[in-house]
Amino acid sequence: MRGHSMEIADWRRKIDELDEQIVRLINQRAAAARAIGELKQKANLPVYEPQREKDVFDHVRRANPGPLSDVEIVDVYERIIDVMRALQRHHD
Amino acid sequence: MRGHSMEIADWRRKIDELDEQIVRLINQRAAAARAIGELKQKANLPVYEPQREKDVFDHVRRANPGPLSDVEIVDVYERIIDVMRALQRHHD
Repeated sequence: MRGHSMEIADWRRKIDELDEQIVRLINQRAAAARAIGELKQKANLPVYEPQREKDVFDHVRRANPGPLSDVEIVDVYERIIDVMRALQRHHD
Repeated sequence: MRGHSMEIADWRRKIDELDEQIVRLINQRAAAARAIGELKQKANLPVYEPQREKDVFDHVRRANPGPLSDVEIVDVYERIIDVMRALQRHHD
């Protein structure tokens, strides 16, 4: 029991380290999405581009090594894309 | 116009590279969550631990450098945690 608790604590430290990296990268992604939003605004291009979103989901599926299923990783990415799309719409 | 399109293509290549890293790290996080799920099962511990989830959200907020707001990064993490919790429940 004590052994299991120690191992759980070790895995949680690993998860915390991963979360710090994931949070940093998602923010870099948001900065890039915001830059694209500004370029689109200058060029009068539409924010919502369904083909680009489809390409992103295809790319994520191809890049997915598991253990998450493609459905699970796409589920996460749907939320990421929702947040990014709102960010592109609401920038100054 | 052509200039803007080129810049958008550059940012999209950057986003694709970031997505490959994000997908890899989220899968590493899933593998760790699955390991914890197996340890919990062996030790007859509950899968759902509200305090741990609260700690994860607090950690994510503290680690958030922006430009995403804390609400936006937590919005993404709510989906990540949902997927991970299902993974812990459904492992063999």
